[in-house]
Amino acid sequence: MARYPTPELKDLPADIQAKILEVQAKAGFVPNVFLALARRPAEWRAFFAYHDALMQKEDSGLSKGDREMIVTTTSAANKCLYCVVAHGAILRIYEKKPLVADQVAVNYRKADISERQRAMLDFAMKVCLKSDELDDADFAALHAHGFSDEDAWDIAAITAFFGLSNRMASFSGMQPNPEFYLMGRVPKQK
Amino acid sequence: MARYPTPELKDLPADIQAKILEVQAKAGFVPNVFLALARRPAEWRAFFAYHDALMQKEDSGLSKGDREMIVTTTSAANKCLYCVVAHGAILRIYEKKPLVADQVAVNYRKADISERQRAMLDFAMKVCLKSDELDDADFAALHAHGFSDEDAWDIAAITAFFGLSNRMASFSGMQPNPEFYLMGRVPKQK
Amino acid sequence: MARYPTPELKDLPADIQAKILEVQAKAGFVPNVFLALARRPAEWRAFFAYHDALMQKEDSGLSKGDREMIVTTTSAANKCLYCVVAHGAILRIYEKKPLVADQVAVNYRKADISERQRAMLDFAMKVCLKSDELDDADFAALHAHGFSDEDAWDIAAITAFFGLSNRMASFSGMQPNPEFYLMGRVPKQK
Amino acid sequence: MARYPTPELKDLPADIQAKILEVQAKAGFVPNVFLALARRPAEWRAFFAYHDALMQKEDSGLSKGDREMIVTTTSAANKCLYCVVAHGAILRIYEKKPLVADQVAVNYRKADISERQRAMLDFAMKVCLKSDELDDADFAALHAHGFSDEDAWDIAAITAFFGLSNRMASFSGMQPNPEFYLMGRVPKQK
Amino acid sequence: MARYPTPELKDLPADIQAKILEVQAKAGFVPNVFLALARRPAEWRAFFAYHDALMQKEDSGLSKGDREMIVTTTSAANKCLYCVVAHGAILRIYEKKPLVADQVAVNYRKADISERQRAMLDFAMKVCLKSDELDDADFAALHAHGFSDEDAWDIAAITAFFGLSNRMASFSGMQPNPEFYLMGRVPKQK
Amino acid sequence: MARYPTPELKDLPADIQAKILEVQAKAGFVPNVFLALARRPAEWRAFFAYHDALMQKEDSGLSKGDREMIVTTTSAANKCLYCVVAHGAILRIYEKKPLVADQVAVNYRKADISERQRAMLDFAMKVCLKSDELDDADFAALHAHGFSDEDAWDIAAITAFFGLSNRMASFSGMQPNPEFYLMGRVPKQK
Repeated sequence: MARYPTPELKDLPADIQAKILEVQAKAGFVPNVFLALARRPAEWRAFFAYHDALMQKEDSGLSKGDREMIVTTTSAANKCLYCVVAHGAILRIYEKKPLVADQVAVNYRKADISERQRAMLDFAMKVCLKSDELDDADFAALHAHGFSDEDAWDIAAITAFFGLSNRMASFSGMQPNPEFYLMGRVPKQK
Repeated sequence: MARYPTPELKDLPADIQAKILEVQAKAGFVPNVFLALARRPAEWRAFFAYHDALMQKEDSGLSKGDREMIVTTTSAANKCLYCVVAHGAILRIYEKKPLVADQVAVNYRKADISERQRAMLDFAMKVCLKSDELDDADFAALHAHGFSDEDAWDIAAITAFFGLSNRMASFSGMQPNPEFYLMGRVPKQK
Repeated sequence: MARYPTPELKDLPADIQAKILEVQAKAGFVPNVFLALARRPAEWRAFFAYHDALMQKEDSGLSKGDREMIVTTTSAANKCLYCVVAHGAILRIYEKKPLVADQVAVNYRKADISERQRAMLDFAMKVCLKSDELDDADFAALHAHGFSDEDAWDIAAITAFFGLSNRMASFSGMQPNPEFYLMGRVPKQK
Repeated sequence: MARYPTPELKDLPADIQAKILEVQAKAGFVPNVFLALARRPAEWRAFFAYHDALMQKEDSGLSKGDREMIVTTTSAANKCLYCVVAHGAILRIYEKKPLVADQVAVNYRKADISERQRAMLDFAMKVCLKSDELDDADFAALHAHGFSDEDAWDIAAITAFFGLSNRMASFSGMQPNPEFYLMGRVPKQK
Repeated sequence: MARYPTPELKDLPADIQAKILEVQAKAGFVPNVFLALARRPAEWRAFFAYHDALMQKEDSGLSKGDREMIVTTTSAANKCLYCVVAHGAILRIYEKKPLVADQVAVNYRKADISERQRAMLDFAMKVCLKSDELDDADFAALHAHGFSDEDAWDIAAITAFFGLSNRMASFSGMQPNPEFYLMGRVPKQK
Repeated sequence: MARYPTPELKDLPADIQAKILEVQAKAGFVPNVFLALARRPAEWRAFFAYHDALMQKEDSGLSKGDREMIVTTTSAANKCLYCVVAHGAILRIYEKKPLVADQVAVNYRKADISERQRAMLDFAMKVCLKSDELDDADFAALHAHGFSDEDAWDIAAITAFFGLSNRMASFSGMQPNPEFYLMGRVPKQK
């Protein structure tokens, strides 16, 4: 389904190779997004620098599970197969809840999540779908659940960044690796 | 999450009890829809009679996998958690494709399905979302893939029936049984 | 306009014939839906069993006029010619208001109905158009007008069932009998 | 339901009185729009001058029935109760088809009208709902049914003018006179 | 881009010529709308009579700047190039704010305008996009900012009239005069 | 209007200061986006690395004017005040067409651009608004105007990146510098 040829790892610049090998070592496979975007090294570097600045940030009011929940939910609104499946997998693992990714992907209003997470997703969905209508009431609703303005920025930036990612994945026909579909659904084998 | 109390099996009319026990014997558990709707026996009987007339019909140009694919895809368009998860499970089993349910639920245009199934889903989605605009061109597109007018009726009726089911499940807060989430994703244990 | 051949009464199963003759005796003609769906007896039986369970239920907080008002209003939202015309006729008769069907079909917010009926239609329209977004506030709005949770179920189920009916009628090109257009608009002739 | 007080005929400027009396003599009653807008004489005069320029124009490729069909159909898309009911009545009379107004109001795609009228309504609906997307193909579709560019202007101008009328009627809570609901449905009494 | 031939000034009826020469004397050029619509004198007269009744009315709670702000904002919602550019120019001049037209055209929620103007535009946008849903709460929001019911009528009528104008301009491919793009952006040259 | 405090240039990391001073030297002022995002240096660096990779890329089939046209058009669809005004200014300068930015912002279908640019914007708008529905026909339409698959990637990536930028600007209340509104509209003063 991919519309663009995927480069071979060996043909990539050294810094990109190094990062990909690191991911492979950790995950056991190379998520397709790493190779699919690598045909354009400058964009690749900016993409993953942005990704890491948001998703691996240490001092955030959002847990890593919260962040993957935002990604899974808004990617479903954008109907992006790659991001729903790949980040849904990571969400299951971080939250240790094997059912939550399918729930937020289909209808986050029916998901088994906290009230605080529900408010976080309401804000994220407005950034995703109607960012021009965001107003004070939306921030107040976040504050009511203990989110700071910095947390609001995190929610918005993650949503905005994955809106970019969703469009690139759908446009280029990026397919999720088969491994993602099952990750976090069953106890790890010893 | 369910808004209405679920009746106990023992308090139900005998015919409903019998059918539920039969399903339980086959599936290993009682799918929540059977108990959730049973608080209104007359509606229950009509609902499952309609369901069986469409989904267990023998002489159809649609395989059972095709039919579950229609259900999963249109239920995702209606954002119905119960039906996407429950029928996605059955779809995986009938099609023997562990990935297909997640694919059609997120974006059927990116799913690994046949051209014929794609045409079937295009028609189903129009029945689901814009039935007032259906016209000759939509039927012609089905015929071009070998579907008969009887097949068109099957596609439309399945979509219409699950549109009813989706609304009842979302309205009443019906939750899918946890068992469904994993069914058909991993080889059966001996 | 009908896309599918209509069966002859004499060729239908006895139980279906009997019901149709009963309806004809009462109405003075056979509403097209009875013959149009009869080409598939199993679906016909489930359809009318469901219809009767909802529309002829005795112990409901909704009057028969209320129920036909839900059907007419939501069928107009789905742009279903058959159901707006046929059920608009029955609505006029039950409510004894010759203008009300046209009013709710065009814009129920401008119709000459009670506040309670307006709340009922707000709920029905949300089930019809955005069932995934239904939440506690929607039920609270119903309760504020004296509707019980059982009444909410009635509203939702009628809306969901006629959503099915609307899709089948539009899909198959079902036309309302000419008789319906005028019924309930003028005093009955002696 | 009207939000603004309706002036008394005797308090209106002479030219407006004269026109209203003329309409009353012809129709047998004063359609509410004539009095409702008369509280602002300058707007009233412009409104009816515009109306007459479009609807009483002699040299048009559109019959008077065609024009009322455009009004009824696009007013239904704008959910304007007054215009659907009042112009639906006039449509029935001009076309001598007692069923056509209800048909185009609910779903013009299912109405018993000519192919040429269907093309006319497709164009009108695009002017009504997506005028920014009109392009050469829309004009070509009209030409294919024998409409000239002047006819296209008539269709667009009627749609645009009644878009104004629809908004004023809905905004001000204008109600159709009860007489309109039945006009053209039954043979005139001698 | 214009789809219809523009008449020559000298060929127009005397009253239309006179009005156009008057506008030209004042503005320094003839705005295209005056010639584009003049090919149909009766419609032209009604159009400008309506326009002047609303836009040159003396006793309104809306300033001329307020009125042009409504036109610019709602014309942007209708994606009408002519009206956004032409009336944006007049808005800049009346409000003596060189930036405000671009702001309301892109997103009036982010524009540097008063709270009262914001409420005025909220109401106008609802008339423009969802007039069928207008209710008491919309009028109350206007009253809270000191607008009277007559002011509400002005807002609605201006929005409705320019909805007509937008559709005619987009339909006929009317282009704004180049002069409008720069008007009110830079101090007048002595 | 900005919701977040803007950092002082002197407090920023040296590399960010250097880049900002460079931009200031070239433009004569510091565009607000450079300071508004600088409160988060890691995100700032990724944002501008991405921006430059797309917008300053040398070997593209898209001219710099083409790229700014994509930004202005899709940012208008997202109702982002900052990006429409800032990039509209740059578009005017690159294209040497003082009117084109307002045209594409209001309705790109009516803009005075080439057929090739129109096809480019059709593709960009689909990436912006319905990326899940992109299919072979969309690529074929680009190819028909001489765009390569690499050009398609450029169009998609620019649209996707500014979709991110639009959401961040709207979310954070970023205002365009007043200088942008007039840039490229009048000949440069000597």
